[in-house]
Amino acid sequence: MALTEISANKIFGGLQKVFSHESKTLGCTMKFGAYIPSQASEKQLPVIYWLSGLTCSESNFIEKAGAQRYAAEQEVIIINPDTSPKGLNIPGDSESWDFGVGAGFYLNATQDPWKNNYKMYDYIVSELIDLVNKNFNVLPAQQSIMGHSMGGHGALILALKNPGLFKSVSAFAPICNPSVCPWGIKAFTGYLGPKETGNWEQWDATELVKKYNRPPLELFIDQGTSDQFLFQLNPENLVEASKSSGVPVIYKQRDGYNHSYFYIASFIGEHIKYHKKYLV
Amino acid sequence: MALTEISANKIFGGLQKVFSHESKTLGCTMKFGAYIPSQASEKQLPVIYWLSGLTCSESNFIEKAGAQRYAAEQEVIIINPDTSPKGLNIPGDSESWDFGVGAGFYLNATQDPWKNNYKMYDYIVSELIDLVNKNFNVLPAQQSIMGHSMGGHGALILALKNPGLFKSVSAFAPICNPSVCPWGIKAFTGYLGPKETGNWEQWDATELVKKYNRPPLELFIDQGTSDQFLFQLNPENLVEASKSSGVPVIYKQRDGYNHSYFYIASFIGEHIKYHKKYLV
Repeated sequence: MALTEISANKIFGGLQKVFSHESKTLGCTMKFGAYIPSQASEKQLPVIYWLSGLTCSESNFIEKAGAQRYAAEQEVIIINPDTSPKGLNIPGDSESWDFGVGAGFYLNATQDPWKNNYKMYDYIVSELIDLVNKNFNVLPAQQSIMGHSMGGHGALILALKNPGLFKSVSAFAPICNPSVCPWGIKAFTGYLGPKETGNWEQWDATELVKKYNRPPLELFIDQGTSDQFLFQLNPENLVEASKSSGVPVIYKQRDGYNHSYFYIASFIGEHIKYHKKYLV
Repeated sequence: MALTEISANKIFGGLQKVFSHESKTLGCTMKFGAYIPSQASEKQLPVIYWLSGLTCSESNFIEKAGAQRYAAEQEVIIINPDTSPKGLNIPGDSESWDFGVGAGFYLNATQDPWKNNYKMYDYIVSELIDLVNKNFNVLPAQQSIMGHSMGGHGALILALKNPGLFKSVSAFAPICNPSVCPWGIKAFTGYLGPKETGNWEQWDATELVKKYNRPPLELFIDQGTSDQFLFQLNPENLVEASKSSGVPVIYKQRDGYNHSYFYIASFIGEHIKYHKKYLV
Protein backbone atom coordinates (compact mmCIF):
# COMPACT_ATOMS: atom_id res chain seq x y z
CA MET A 1 0.00 0.00 0.00
CA ALA A 2 2.42 2.63 -1.21
CA LEU A 3 1.68 6.30 -0.73
CA THR A 4 2.67 8.91 -3.30
CA GLU A 5 3.26 12.38 -1.94
CA ILE A 6 1.51 14.87 -4.24
CA SER A 7 2.33 18.06 -2.38
CA ALA A 8 3.77 19.40 0.87
CA ASN A 9 3.32 22.97 2.09
CA LYS A 10 4.58 24.30 5.38
CA ILE A 11 1.83 25.93 7.45
CA PHE A 12 1.81 26.83 11.14
CA GLY A 13 5.08 25.01 11.67
CA GLY A 14 3.83 21.68 10.28
CA LEU A 15 3.30 20.28 6.83
CA GLN A 16 0.04 20.12 4.92
CA LYS A 17 0.52 17.18 2.61
CA VAL A 18 -1.60 15.51 -0.02
CA PHE A 19 -1.07 11.85 -0.87
CA SER A 20 -2.44 9.52 -3.50
CA HIS A 21 -2.67 5.73 -3.37
CA GLU A 22 -4.26 2.89 -5.27
CA SER A 23 -7.35 1.88 -3.32
CA LYS A 24 -8.16 -1.83 -3.44
CA THR A 25 -11.53 -1.21 -1.85
CA LEU A 26 -12.65 1.38 -4.38
CA GLY A 27 -10.72 0.20 -7.42
CA CYS A 28 -9.31 3.61 -8.24
CA THR A 29 -6.61 6.11 -7.32
CA MET A 30 -7.61 8.11 -4.26
CA LYS A 31 -6.19 11.25 -2.71
CA PHE A 32 -6.29 12.40 0.88
CA GLY A 33 -4.93 15.30 2.88
CA ALA A 34 -2.71 14.94 5.94
CA TYR A 35 -1.72 17.78 8.22
CA ILE A 36 1.36 16.75 10.14
CA PRO A 37 2.28 19.04 13.05
CA SER A 38 6.00 19.48 13.60
CA GLN A 39 5.77 17.53 16.86
CA ALA A 40 5.10 14.34 14.87
CA SER A 41 8.81 14.12 14.12
CA GLU A 42 9.47 13.61 17.84
CA LYS A 43 6.50 11.68 19.17
CA GLN A 44 3.34 9.81 18.29
CA LEU A 45 0.27 12.00 17.89
CA PRO A 46 -3.48 11.32 17.89
CA VAL A 47 -5.45 11.60 14.65
CA ILE A 48 -8.70 13.32 13.76
CA TYR A 49 -10.41 12.29 10.54
CA TRP A 50 -12.37 14.94 8.64
CA LEU A 51 -15.07 13.94 6.14
CA SER A 52 -16.15 16.58 3.62
CA GLY A 53 -19.53 17.33 2.09
CA LEU A 54 -21.12 17.05 -1.32
CA THR A 55 -19.02 18.12 -4.35
CA CYS A 56 -15.86 18.38 -2.27
CA SER A 57 -12.50 16.80 -2.93
CA GLU A 58 -9.73 16.68 -0.35
CA SER A 59 -8.75 20.25 -1.21
CA ASN A 60 -11.71 22.27 0.15
CA PHE A 61 -11.03 21.51 3.79
CA ILE A 62 -7.29 21.99 3.36
CA GLU A 63 -7.65 25.41 1.77
CA LYS A 64 -10.68 26.86 3.51
CA ALA A 65 -11.22 25.50 7.01
CA GLY A 66 -8.17 27.02 8.68
CA ALA A 67 -7.78 23.86 10.76
CA GLN A 68 -4.01 23.70 10.61
CA ARG A 69 -3.49 26.40 13.20
CA TYR A 70 -5.52 24.50 15.77
CA ALA A 71 -4.10 21.11 14.83
CA ALA A 72 -0.63 22.56 15.42
CA GLU A 73 -1.69 24.01 18.77
CA GLN A 74 -3.39 20.81 19.89
CA GLU A 75 -0.73 18.51 18.44
CA VAL A 76 -3.06 16.33 16.40
CA ILE A 77 -2.71 14.93 12.89
CA ILE A 78 -5.70 15.60 10.63
CA ILE A 79 -6.52 13.21 7.80
CA ASN A 80 -9.17 14.17 5.23
CA PRO A 81 -10.11 11.77 2.44
CA ASP A 82 -11.94 12.50 -0.79
CA THR A 83 -15.74 12.17 -0.84
CA SER A 84 -16.20 9.41 -3.44
CA PRO A 85 -14.29 7.20 -5.84
CA LYS A 86 -12.77 9.25 -8.64
CA GLY A 87 -11.85 8.71 -12.26
CA LEU A 88 -13.97 5.61 -12.84
CA ASN A 89 -16.36 7.10 -15.42
CA ILE A 90 -19.25 4.90 -14.37
CA PRO A 91 -22.26 5.78 -16.56
CA GLY A 92 -24.30 8.38 -14.68
CA ASP A 93 -21.65 9.23 -12.10
CA SER A 94 -21.32 12.85 -13.21
CA GLU A 95 -24.86 13.79 -14.17
CA SER A 96 -25.71 15.52 -10.91
CA TRP A 97 -23.73 17.20 -8.16
CA ASP A 98 -25.50 15.31 -5.37
CA PHE A 99 -25.03 11.75 -6.64
CA GLY A 100 -22.04 9.81 -7.93
CA VAL A 101 -18.73 11.66 -8.11
CA GLY A 102 -18.30 13.85 -5.05
CA ALA A 103 -21.29 12.26 -3.35
CA GLY A 104 -20.26 8.85 -2.03
CA PHE A 105 -22.27 9.27 1.19
CA TYR A 106 -19.78 7.14 3.17
CA LEU A 107 -21.78 3.94 2.65
CA ASN A 108 -21.35 0.65 0.79
CA ALA A 109 -23.52 0.57 -2.32
CA THR A 110 -25.46 -2.59 -3.06
CA GLN A 111 -26.91 -1.63 -6.44
CA ASP A 112 -25.50 -1.78 -9.96
CA PRO A 113 -23.51 -0.03 -11.33
CA TRP A 114 -22.23 1.32 -7.99
CA LYS A 115 -21.69 -1.72 -5.80
CA ASN A 116 -18.21 -2.62 -7.02
CA ASN A 117 -16.67 0.78 -6.33
CA TYR A 118 -18.89 2.99 -4.19
CA LYS A 119 -17.76 1.58 -0.87
CA MET A 120 -16.55 4.66 0.96
CA TYR A 121 -17.55 3.11 4.29
CA ASP A 122 -15.28 0.14 3.83
CA TYR A 123 -12.61 2.37 2.37
CA ILE A 124 -12.37 4.44 5.53
CA VAL A 125 -12.89 1.72 8.13
CA SER A 126 -10.84 -1.02 6.53
CA GLU A 127 -8.31 0.71 4.29
CA LEU A 128 -7.63 4.36 5.09
CA ILE A 129 -7.28 3.99 8.86
CA ASP A 130 -4.91 1.08 8.36
CA LEU A 131 -2.94 3.08 5.81
CA VAL A 132 -2.64 6.01 8.20
CA ASN A 133 -1.62 3.81 11.11
CA LYS A 134 1.15 2.24 9.05
CA ASN A 135 2.49 5.39 7.41
CA PHE A 136 2.27 8.14 10.02
CA ASN A 137 3.62 8.57 13.53
CA VAL A 138 0.25 8.05 15.23
CA LEU A 139 -0.73 6.97 18.72
CA PRO A 140 -2.39 3.53 18.49
CA ALA A 141 -6.18 3.74 18.64
CA GLN A 142 -6.20 7.43 19.56
CA GLN A 143 -8.48 8.67 16.82
CA SER A 144 -11.61 10.79 16.50
CA ILE A 145 -13.80 11.79 13.59
CA MET A 146 -15.65 14.87 12.40
CA GLY A 147 -17.23 16.11 9.19
CA HIS A 148 -19.51 18.55 7.42
CA SER A 149 -22.96 18.04 5.87
CA MET A 150 -22.74 14.72 3.98
CA GLY A 151 -19.43 14.26 5.82
CA GLY A 152 -21.15 15.00 9.12
CA HIS A 153 -23.53 12.16 8.29
CA GLY A 154 -20.45 10.07 7.49
CA ALA A 155 -18.75 10.87 10.78
CA LEU A 156 -21.88 10.03 12.75
CA ILE A 157 -22.58 6.69 11.09
CA LEU A 158 -18.92 5.65 11.19
CA ALA A 159 -18.84 6.34 14.93
CA LEU A 160 -22.21 4.74 15.66
CA LYS A 161 -21.53 1.61 13.57
CA ASN A 162 -18.09 1.03 15.09
CA PRO A 163 -18.41 1.42 18.85
CA GLY A 164 -15.06 2.28 20.39
CA LEU A 165 -13.26 2.87 17.10
CA PHE A 166 -13.37 6.65 17.56
CA LYS A 167 -12.86 8.34 20.91
CA SER A 168 -15.21 11.16 19.96
CA VAL A 169 -17.35 12.41 17.08
CA SER A 170 -18.52 15.83 15.97
CA ALA A 171 -20.37 17.15 12.97
CA PHE A 172 -20.97 20.53 11.35
CA ALA A 173 -24.45 20.81 9.83
CA PRO A 174 -24.72 17.04 9.36
CA ILE A 175 -27.37 15.28 7.31
CA CYS A 176 -28.81 13.70 10.43
CA ASN A 177 -31.65 11.67 8.97
CA PRO A 178 -30.89 10.95 5.29
CA SER A 179 -33.84 8.56 4.95
CA VAL A 180 -36.25 11.51 5.04
CA CYS A 181 -34.49 14.34 3.16
CA PRO A 182 -34.15 14.90 -0.60
CA TRP A 183 -30.35 14.46 -0.72
CA GLY A 184 -30.49 11.28 1.32
CA ILE A 185 -33.46 9.75 -0.47
CA LYS A 186 -31.82 10.31 -3.85
CA ALA A 187 -28.49 8.85 -2.75
CA PHE A 188 -29.89 5.91 -0.79
CA THR A 189 -32.30 4.98 -3.57
CA GLY A 190 -29.47 4.99 -6.09
CA TYR A 191 -26.85 3.22 -4.01
CA LEU A 192 -29.04 0.95 -1.86
CA GLY A 193 -32.29 0.50 -3.73
CA PRO A 194 -35.81 1.41 -2.54
CA LYS A 195 -36.40 2.11 1.13
CA GLU A 196 -38.52 -1.01 1.52
CA THR A 197 -35.68 -3.35 0.58
CA GLY A 198 -32.54 -1.23 0.92
CA ASN A 199 -31.85 -1.44 4.67
CA TRP A 200 -31.54 2.33 4.79
CA GLU A 201 -31.65 2.27 8.58
CA GLN A 202 -28.14 0.81 8.61
CA TRP A 203 -26.81 4.07 7.14
CA ASP A 204 -28.91 6.65 8.93
CA ALA A 205 -27.61 8.21 12.16
CA THR A 206 -31.11 8.88 13.48
CA GLU A 207 -31.91 5.17 13.18
CA LEU A 208 -28.51 3.92 14.32
CA VAL A 209 -28.46 6.01 17.48
CA LYS A 210 -31.62 4.28 18.74
CA LYS A 211 -29.73 1.02 18.94
CA TYR A 212 -26.42 2.35 20.20
CA ASN A 213 -25.33 0.65 23.36
CA ARG A 214 -21.76 1.13 24.52
CA PRO A 215 -19.03 2.20 25.09
CA PRO A 216 -20.31 5.65 26.04
CA LEU A 217 -20.31 8.05 23.09
CA GLU A 218 -21.36 11.68 23.02
CA LEU A 219 -22.54 13.29 19.77
CA PHE A 220 -21.40 16.87 19.21
CA ILE A 221 -23.75 18.42 16.64
CA ASP A 222 -23.01 21.93 15.40
CA GLN A 223 -25.57 23.83 13.35
CA GLY A 224 -25.82 27.35 11.90
CA THR A 225 -29.23 28.92 12.33
CA SER A 226 -29.08 30.58 8.88
CA ASP A 227 -28.15 27.37 7.08
CA GLN A 228 -29.77 27.44 3.65
CA PHE A 229 -29.92 23.62 3.66
CA LEU A 230 -31.46 23.17 7.09
CA PHE A 231 -34.45 21.36 5.54
CA GLN A 232 -32.03 18.64 4.42
CA LEU A 233 -30.39 18.22 7.81
CA ASN A 234 -33.06 17.54 10.48
CA PRO A 235 -30.86 17.79 13.56
CA GLU A 236 -33.94 17.74 15.79
CA ASN A 237 -34.73 14.20 14.58
CA LEU A 238 -31.35 12.99 15.77
CA VAL A 239 -31.58 14.86 19.06
CA GLU A 240 -34.99 13.30 19.71
CA ALA A 241 -33.94 9.80 18.67
CA SER A 242 -30.86 9.84 20.88
CA LYS A 243 -33.04 10.23 23.95
CA SER A 244 -34.48 6.76 23.47
CA SER A 245 -31.08 5.13 23.91
CA GLY A 246 -29.66 7.65 26.35
CA VAL A 247 -26.89 8.80 24.02
CA PRO A 248 -25.90 12.32 25.11
CA VAL A 249 -25.93 15.03 22.46
CA ILE A 250 -24.26 18.41 22.59
CA TYR A 251 -26.33 20.48 20.17
CA LYS A 252 -24.84 23.89 19.51
CA GLN A 253 -26.77 26.34 17.37
CA ARG A 254 -24.74 29.21 15.91
CA ASP A 255 -26.71 32.36 15.37
CA GLY A 256 -26.61 33.70 11.81
CA TYR A 257 -24.13 31.20 10.38
CA ASN A 258 -24.84 29.42 7.10
CA HIS A 259 -23.68 26.13 5.51
CA SER A 260 -20.33 27.39 4.16
CA TYR A 261 -16.68 26.99 5.05
CA PHE A 262 -16.88 30.48 6.56
CA TYR A 263 -19.04 28.86 9.23
CA ILE A 264 -16.75 25.86 9.58
CA ALA A 265 -13.67 28.07 9.92
CA SER A 266 -15.32 29.94 12.78
CA PHE A 267 -15.76 26.83 14.94
CA ILE A 268 -13.24 24.25 13.74
CA GLY A 269 -10.91 25.31 16.55
CA GLU A 270 -13.56 24.54 19.13
CA HIS A 271 -14.14 21.12 17.60
CA ILE A 272 -10.46 20.22 17.51
CA LYS A 273 -10.10 21.21 21.16
CA TYR A 274 -13.18 19.14 21.97
CA HIS A 275 -11.72 16.04 20.34
CA LYS A 276 -8.34 16.54 21.95
CA LYS A 277 -9.95 16.14 25.38
CA TYR A 278 -10.77 12.54 24.43
CA LEU A 279 -7.43 11.73 22.86
CA VAL A 280 -4.42 10.70 24.92
CA MET B 1 -20.84 55.39 -6.59
CA ALA B 2 -23.30 52.71 -5.63
CA LEU B 3 -22.16 49.43 -4.18
CA THR B 4 -23.90 46.16 -4.97
CA GLU B 5 -23.61 43.47 -2.32
CA ILE B 6 -22.75 40.18 -4.03
CA SER B 7 -22.48 37.98 -0.95
CA ALA B 8 -22.38 38.07 2.83
CA ASN B 9 -21.20 35.18 5.00
CA LYS B 10 -20.89 35.25 8.76
CA ILE B 11 -17.44 34.30 9.98
CA PHE B 12 -15.85 34.81 13.40
CA GLY B 13 -18.76 36.95 14.48
CA GLY B 14 -18.47 39.43 11.60
CA LEU B 15 -19.49 39.42 7.96
CA GLN B 16 -17.30 38.59 5.00
CA LYS B 17 -18.89 40.50 2.18
CA VAL B 18 -18.15 40.90 -1.51
CA PHE B 19 -19.27 44.02 -3.35
CA SER B 20 -19.26 45.11 -6.96
CA HIS B 21 -19.31 48.62 -8.35
CA GLU B 22 -18.83 50.45 -11.63
CA SER B 23 -15.32 51.86 -11.60
CA LYS B 24 -14.94 55.17 -13.41
CA THR B 25 -11.18 54.92 -13.19
CA LEU B 26 -10.95 51.49 -14.79
CA GLY B 27 -14.03 51.62 -17.01
CA CYS B 28 -15.38 48.27 -15.87
CA THR B 29 -17.28 46.52 -13.11
CA MET B 30 -14.98 45.71 -10.20
CA LYS B 31 -15.39 43.49 -7.17
CA PHE B 32 -13.75 43.73 -3.78
CA GLY B 33 -13.96 41.90 -0.47
CA ALA B 34 -14.80 43.55 2.82
CA TYR B 35 -14.54 41.84 6.20
CA ILE B 36 -16.67 43.75 8.67
CA PRO B 37 -16.16 42.77 12.32
CA SER B 38 -19.29 42.88 14.44
CA GLN B 39 -17.93 45.86 16.36
CA ALA B 40 -18.37 48.02 13.25
CA SER B 41 -22.05 48.26 14.03
CA GLU B 42 -21.21 50.14 17.22
CA LYS B 43 -18.13 52.18 16.42
CA GLN B 44 -15.75 53.33 13.71
CA LEU B 45 -12.93 50.90 12.97
CA PRO B 46 -9.58 51.23 11.21
CA VAL B 47 -9.06 49.62 7.80
CA ILE B 48 -6.31 47.44 6.41
CA TYR B 49 -6.12 47.06 2.62
CA TRP B 50 -4.89 43.76 1.21
CA LEU B 51 -3.51 43.54 -2.33
CA SER B 52 -3.32 40.08 -3.90
CA GLY B 53 -0.79 38.56 -6.26
CA LEU B 54 -0.73 37.42 -9.87
CA THR B 55 -3.78 35.49 -11.16
CA CYS B 56 -5.82 36.27 -8.05
CA SER B 57 -9.27 37.76 -7.85
CA GLU B 58 -10.77 39.05 -4.62
CA SER B 59 -11.72 35.50 -3.62
CA ASN B 60 -8.32 33.89 -2.94
CA PHE B 61 -7.54 36.00 0.11
CA ILE B 62 -11.08 35.70 1.44
CA GLU B 63 -11.11 31.91 1.22
CA LYS B 64 -7.53 30.96 1.99
CA ALA B 65 -5.74 33.47 4.20
CA GLY B 66 -7.73 32.93 7.39
CA ALA B 67 -7.50 36.65 8.13
CA GLN B 68 -11.02 37.05 9.46
CA ARG B 69 -10.24 35.55 12.87
CA TYR B 70 -7.49 38.09 13.47
CA ALA B 71 -9.45 40.99 12.01
CA ALA B 72 -12.26 40.15 14.43
CA GLU B 73 -9.82 39.95 17.36
CA GLN B 74 -8.09 43.20 16.44
CA GLU B 75 -11.28 44.99 15.43
CA VAL B 76 -10.15 46.08 11.97
CA ILE B 77 -11.99 46.11 8.66
CA ILE B 78 -10.12 44.41 5.82
CA ILE B 79 -10.70 45.51 2.23
CA ASN B 80 -9.26 43.47 -0.63
CA PRO B 81 -9.69 44.58 -4.24
CA ASP B 82 -9.26 42.58 -7.40
CA THR B 83 -5.85 42.56 -9.11
CA SER B 84 -6.69 44.12 -12.47
CA PRO B 85 -9.56 45.44 -14.54
CA LYS B 86 -11.93 42.61 -15.51
CA GLY B 87 -14.27 41.87 -18.37
CA LEU B 88 -12.83 44.34 -20.87
CA ASN B 89 -11.54 41.83 -23.42
CA ILE B 90 -8.66 44.03 -24.53
CA PRO B 91 -6.72 42.15 -27.23
CA GLY B 92 -3.89 40.29 -25.53
CA ASP B 93 -5.21 40.67 -21.98
CA SER B 94 -5.67 36.93 -21.46
CA GLU B 95 -2.75 35.42 -23.34
CA SER B 96 -0.52 34.94 -20.31
CA TRP B 97 -1.08 34.57 -16.59
CA ASP B 98 1.50 37.20 -15.66
CA PHE B 99 0.27 40.06 -17.86
CA GLY B 100 -3.14 41.64 -18.45
CA VAL B 101 -6.08 40.12 -16.59
CA GLY B 102 -5.06 39.25 -13.04
CA ALA B 103 -1.78 41.11 -13.40
CA GLY B 104 -2.47 44.84 -13.13
CA PHE B 105 0.69 45.47 -11.08
CA TYR B 106 -0.95 48.36 -9.22
CA LEU B 107 0.40 50.99 -11.63
CA ASN B 108 -1.00 53.37 -14.23
CA ALA B 109 -0.27 52.12 -17.75
CA THR B 110 0.93 54.63 -20.31
CA GLN B 111 0.98 52.38 -23.36
CA ASP B 112 -1.73 51.33 -25.80
CA PRO B 113 -3.97 49.37 -25.51
CA TRP B 114 -3.67 49.46 -21.71
CA LYS B 115 -3.53 53.11 -20.76
CA ASN B 116 -7.27 53.78 -20.72
CA ASN B 117 -8.12 51.00 -18.27
CA TYR B 118 -5.07 49.57 -16.55
CA LYS B 119 -4.87 52.20 -13.84
CA MET B 120 -4.99 50.12 -10.68
CA TYR B 121 -2.86 52.69 -8.86
CA ASP B 122 -5.36 55.47 -9.44
CA TYR B 123 -8.21 53.07 -8.76
CA ILE B 124 -6.99 52.34 -5.26
CA VAL B 125 -5.68 55.76 -4.29
CA SER B 126 -8.43 57.89 -5.82
CA GLU B 127 -11.50 55.66 -6.04
CA LEU B 128 -11.49 52.63 -3.74
CA ILE B 129 -10.32 54.39 -0.59
CA ASP B 130 -12.93 57.08 -1.13
CA LEU B 131 -15.59 54.48 -1.73
CA VAL B 132 -14.66 52.65 1.47
CA ASN B 133 -14.59 55.84 3.51
CA LYS B 134 -18.07 56.74 2.30
CA ASN B 135 -19.71 53.34 2.65
CA PHE B 136 -18.24 51.74 5.77
CA ASN B 137 -18.01 52.75 9.39
CA VAL B 138 -14.30 53.58 9.27
CA LEU B 139 -12.09 55.77 11.39
CA PRO B 140 -10.96 58.74 9.27
CA ALA B 141 -7.41 58.31 7.95
CA GLN B 142 -6.74 55.23 10.07
CA GLN B 143 -5.65 52.88 7.32
CA SER B 144 -2.75 50.56 6.58
CA ILE B 145 -1.83 48.38 3.63
CA MET B 146 -0.39 44.95 3.03
CA GLY B 147 -0.13 42.48 0.17
CA HIS B 148 1.43 39.38 -1.34
CA SER B 149 3.91 39.01 -4.20
CA MET B 150 2.68 41.41 -6.94
CA GLY B 151 0.37 42.77 -4.24
CA GLY B 152 3.32 43.18 -1.88
CA HIS B 153 4.92 45.31 -4.57
CA GLY B 154 1.62 47.19 -4.79
CA ALA B 155 1.46 47.79 -1.04
CA LEU B 156 5.04 49.05 -0.96
CA ILE B 157 4.74 51.48 -3.87
CA LEU B 158 1.36 52.77 -2.70
CA ALA B 159 2.83 53.52 0.74
CA LEU B 160 6.08 55.01 -0.60
CA LYS B 161 4.37 57.17 -3.23
CA ASN B 162 1.78 58.55 -0.80
CA PRO B 163 3.61 59.56 2.37
CA GLY B 164 1.25 59.61 5.33
CA LEU B 165 -1.66 57.98 3.50
CA PHE B 166 -1.07 54.64 5.24
CA LYS B 167 -0.05 54.35 8.87
CA SER B 168 1.96 51.19 8.17
CA VAL B 169 2.84 48.82 5.36
CA SER B 170 3.75 45.14 5.23
CA ALA B 171 4.34 42.66 2.44
CA PHE B 172 4.49 38.89 2.10
CA ALA B 173 7.08 37.80 -0.45
CA PRO B 174 6.83 41.09 -2.36
CA ILE B 175 8.28 41.76 -5.80
CA CYS B 176 10.72 44.27 -4.34
CA ASN B 177 12.56 45.36 -7.46
CA PRO B 178 10.33 44.74 -10.49
CA SER B 179 12.69 46.58 -12.86
CA VAL B 180 15.17 43.71 -12.66
CA CYS B 181 13.05 40.52 -12.46
CA PRO B 182 11.26 38.65 -15.28
CA TRP B 183 7.72 39.31 -14.01
CA GLY B 184 8.40 43.00 -13.55
CA ILE B 185 10.28 43.51 -16.81
CA LYS B 186 7.46 41.88 -18.78
CA ALA B 187 4.75 43.91 -17.04
CA PHE B 188 6.57 47.23 -17.04
CA THR B 189 7.59 46.88 -20.69
CA GLY B 190 3.99 46.17 -21.66
CA TYR B 191 2.29 48.78 -19.51
CA LEU B 192 4.96 51.51 -19.42
CA GLY B 193 7.16 50.97 -22.47
CA PRO B 194 10.90 50.29 -22.56
CA LYS B 195 13.00 50.93 -19.47
CA GLU B 196 14.83 53.80 -21.15
CA THR B 197 11.67 55.84 -21.65
CA GLY B 198 9.11 54.27 -19.32
CA ASN B 199 9.96 55.90 -15.97
CA TRP B 200 10.04 52.48 -14.37
CA GLU B 201 11.66 53.92 -11.25
CA GLN B 202 8.33 55.57 -10.35
CA TRP B 203 6.79 52.12 -9.85
CA ASP B 204 9.65 50.21 -8.24
CA ALA B 205 9.88 50.07 -4.43
CA THR B 206 13.65 49.65 -4.49
CA GLU B 207 13.97 52.91 -6.42
CA LEU B 208 11.23 54.76 -4.57
CA VAL B 209 12.63 54.00 -1.13
CA LYS B 210 15.88 55.80 -1.97
CA LYS B 211 13.98 59.07 -2.26
CA TYR B 212 11.55 58.55 0.62
CA ASN B 213 11.71 61.40 3.10
CA ARG B 214 8.92 61.65 5.65
CA PRO B 215 6.76 61.08 7.63
CA PRO B 216 8.60 58.13 9.19
CA LEU B 217 7.61 54.83 7.60
CA GLU B 218 8.84 51.36 8.46
CA LEU B 219 8.73 48.58 5.85
CA PHE B 220 7.74 45.13 7.18
CA ILE B 221 8.98 42.58 4.65
CA ASP B 222 8.10 38.92 5.20
CA GLN B 223 9.75 36.21 3.14
CA GLY B 224 9.68 32.41 3.12
CA THR B 225 13.10 30.82 2.69
CA SER B 226 11.72 28.03 0.47
CA ASP B 227 9.88 30.40 -1.85
CA GLN B 228 10.00 28.96 -5.36
CA PHE B 229 9.82 32.48 -6.80
CA LEU B 230 12.58 34.04 -4.72
CA PHE B 231 14.53 34.90 -7.89
CA GLN B 232 11.64 37.22 -8.85
CA LEU B 233 11.47 38.98 -5.51
CA ASN B 234 14.92 40.38 -4.60
CA PRO B 235 14.18 41.46 -1.02
CA GLU B 236 17.88 42.08 -0.41
CA ASN B 237 17.84 44.84 -3.06
CA LEU B 238 15.12 46.68 -1.14
CA VAL B 239 16.81 46.14 2.21
CA GLU B 240 20.06 47.55 0.82
CA ALA B 241 18.37 50.49 -0.94
CA SER B 242 16.47 51.50 2.17
CA LYS B 243 19.74 52.09 4.00
CA SER B 244 20.57 55.04 1.74
CA SER B 245 17.52 56.97 2.88
CA GLY B 246 17.41 55.66 6.43
CA VAL B 247 14.04 53.95 6.01
CA PRO B 248 13.86 51.18 8.62
CA VAL B 249 13.05 47.67 7.38
CA ILE B 250 11.85 44.73 9.41
CA TYR B 251 12.94 41.77 7.31
CA LYS B 252 11.58 38.48 8.63
CA GLN B 253 12.68 35.28 6.95
CA ARG B 254 10.48 32.23 7.60
CA ASP B 255 12.31 28.96 7.52
CA GLY B 256 10.89 26.42 5.07
CA TYR B 257 7.84 28.41 3.95
CA ASN B 258 7.04 28.79 0.25
CA HIS B 259 5.07 31.34 -1.81
CA SER B 260 1.58 29.95 -1.14
CA TYR B 261 -1.43 30.94 0.92
CA PHE B 262 -0.36 28.25 3.40
CA TYR B 263 2.57 30.55 4.16
CA ILE B 264 0.36 33.65 4.28
CA ALA B 265 -2.13 31.96 6.61
CA SER B 266 0.67 31.16 9.04
CA PHE B 267 1.69 34.79 9.52
CA ILE B 268 -1.30 36.95 8.58
CA GLY B 269 -2.21 37.19 12.26
CA GLU B 270 1.19 38.63 13.08
CA HIS B 271 0.83 41.22 10.31
CA ILE B 272 -2.64 42.30 11.37
CA LYS B 273 -1.41 42.76 14.95
CA TYR B 274 1.55 44.73 13.62
CA HIS B 275 -0.70 47.12 11.71
CA LYS B 276 -3.08 47.51 14.60
CA LYS B 277 -0.27 49.02 16.66
CA TYR B 278 -0.19 51.93 14.22
CA LEU B 279 -3.95 52.35 13.95
CA VAL B 280 -5.94 54.34 16.48
